Amino acid sequence: MSLDWLSAPCVQPDTELADAARAHQLQLTKPPGSLGMLEAVAVQLASLQRTAQPALDRVWISVFAADHGVAEEGVSAFPQVVTGEMVRNFATGGAAISVLARSLDAKLDVVNLGTVNDPGEIPGVRRAIIAPSTANFCRGPAMNEAQLEAALAAGADRVRAAQKADAQLFIGGEMGIANTTSAAALASALLEEPPSCLAGAGTGLNAAGIQHKVTVLERALELHATANNALEQLRCLGGFEIAALVGAYVAASQAGIPLLVDGFISTTAALAAVTIQPEVRAWLLFSHRSKEHGHARVLRALQAEPLIDLGMRLGEASGAATAVPLLRLACALHNGMATFEQAGVSNVD
Amino acid sequence: MSLDWLSAPCVQPDTELADAARAHQLQLTKPPGSLGMLEAVAVQLASLQRTAQPALDRVWISVFAADHGVAEEGVSAFPQVVTGEMVRNFATGGAAISVLARSLDAKLDVVNLGTVNDPGEIPGVRRAIIAPSTANFCRGPAMNEAQLEAALAAGADRVRAAQKADAQLFIGGEMGIANTTSAAALASALLEEPPSCLAGAGTGLNAAGIQHKVTVLERALELHATANNALEQLRCLGGFEIAALVGAYVAASQAGIPLLVDGFISTTAALAAVTIQPEVRAWLLFSHRSKEHGHARVLRALQAEPLIDLGMRLGEASGAATAVPLLRLACALHNGMATFEQAGVSNVD
Repeated sequence: MSLDWLSAPCVQPDTELADAARAHQLQLTKPPGSLGMLEAVAVQLASLQRTAQPALDRVWISVFAADHGVAEEGVSAFPQVVTGEMVRNFATGGAAISVLARSLDAKLDVVNLGTVNDPGEIPGVRRAIIAPSTANFCRGPAMNEAQLEAALAAGADRVRAAQKADAQLFIGGEMGIANTTSAAALASALLEEPPSCLAGAGTGLNAAGIQHKVTVLERALELHATANNALEQLRCLGGFEIAALVGAYVAASQAGIPLLVDGFISTTAALAAVTIQPEVRAWLLFSHRSKEHGHARVLRALQAEPLIDLGMRLGEASGAATAVPLLRLACALHNGMATFEQAGVSNVD
Repeated sequence: MSLDWLSAPCVQPDTELADAARAHQLQLTKPPGSLGMLEAVAVQLASLQRTAQPALDRVWISVFAADHGVAEEGVSAFPQVVTGEMVRNFATGGAAISVLARSLDAKLDVVNLGTVNDPGEIPGVRRAIIAPSTANFCRGPAMNEAQLEAALAAGADRVRAAQKADAQLFIGGEMGIANTTSAAALASALLEEPPSCLAGAGTGLNAAGIQHKVTVLERALELHATANNALEQLRCLGGFEIAALVGAYVAASQAGIPLLVDGFISTTAALAAVTIQPEVRAWLLFSHRSKEHGHARVLRALQAEPLIDLGMRLGEASGAATAVPLLRLACALHNGMATFEQAGVSNVD
């Protein structure tokens, strides 16, 4: 089986370095715990990067784009041509993630896995076309087995590229009209919760649009009720970009590269990855709480506490990118603050 | 009266530029509203900076340090010598705010308004000594009138320095053992709410310590019950650094410099400033929700929604500094994203 790689072991986080980082935080000139989550993420990064001095100078962002057959059910506020148009916008620098990556001096890697409106060869976009889109999962499985394998492998491939570039953090992002519908279907199947708990406005549906989306999801979940493991649920209900994210999360955990998870769709991919290979969980940091309705539920299932909650709901890895400076400041504080002894400051009475 | 300057008018934010910024956001290649609070702060900064292209290249941070007579009531987990020791730590680069300012390439301006343990002349610290500490407000007013005037003026002085440096954002911070007690007293008086609603753990009190703090606050509020306006409440219950923050907030609003407010103590100073000069409110951006118990209440009184909530409770402007990269990214997105027309991306159906 060419999916055996998914169950290979992940790197084990270094618990001794975590303990040492925790002890170091207590020596810094501040009341213990007063930097809140900034302390926790510095400790986690020290443990994952296996160093006393965690750092995020080299951040890698892969955005996977793909179209969805289920778009023909009218579940998105935007037309399907936008997926291909946005691939070009990522590469030419006008999209939110383009601006964010530039501002952060992060590597932006754009991967086209298949769009109905094919933008063709574009400098800065990697073509890894699987098909123009998935199949409409209201009528059959979204992917065949070869497509699922290809999508998972496409994610792993980008992790290998990130590893070659010595990336200290891997961020996955996605673009694909109708992909909140696909993610809601997958989350619904993984969590065994009704679609109404997971379907939201996506790019901007009104209440009637969301109700229609729920009906579409109910049909799909009924059709694929026999899909009873995460990989099969991913094949039947996922998208190429979602499967690529799953592959990337597993491969990064196996390579020992910390992951920063974006919003609803990425977190759903992370849930699938953790269901397939539970050791992935240790490698996940969570960036933001999206405004998309289902995100809170998926985060809860992963016992995840994201860093920020700014009402964002754009995807493209934009929430994760926005949180990167907070992680960088956490590292700077951990590495750069004086201890009570160094500074000659009296400790607690 | 030498406090007349406090009621001079503030600069009016530019509502036309705010409208234009809002319209511009709708043209950018993303679903409308999908960048959440990042859109709102970009619009606010455009309006306050009176420009279509808001920017935060030049950020000014003034940290005001001072000691509190009420420390003798045993209301802090740390000894009073720490205030003076931390002044040195700010200047030598080992404190959290020192690391953050360096990481942000922001100007860090440290002002010593009076510490019991006087660190003396230190390169990088401005001496503006009012007294070694305020008086214990359980026995009498914390400040006399001349001291209040001096403290308010010290804040305004740093705004003038920031203005000379062409600062695009002013952040005020504070350091002073026992100053959550002073801030809780002031907030309690301003909001006419019982001290138990506003007293918290500060640098790390346990439940018994907090209960003792509440008792101390009740005595103080009873003693100063006749102080019936914000300036008089500030004089009787505040600290030199809190009054300096009030002066800075009013002066910056009069000078047209946007303000980013830090945690509980700074927000209480902001509440006092808005009570004294309501036009200040428009100039306030709110950085973070502190873990300190009373902060949520003071934020609510100002109808403030901070950007981050990381469980921080350190003061020193550390929460505000941590939020600066989010404001910078908001500006970068506002200024750098392509419009639907520029990128050839189809808009909503």
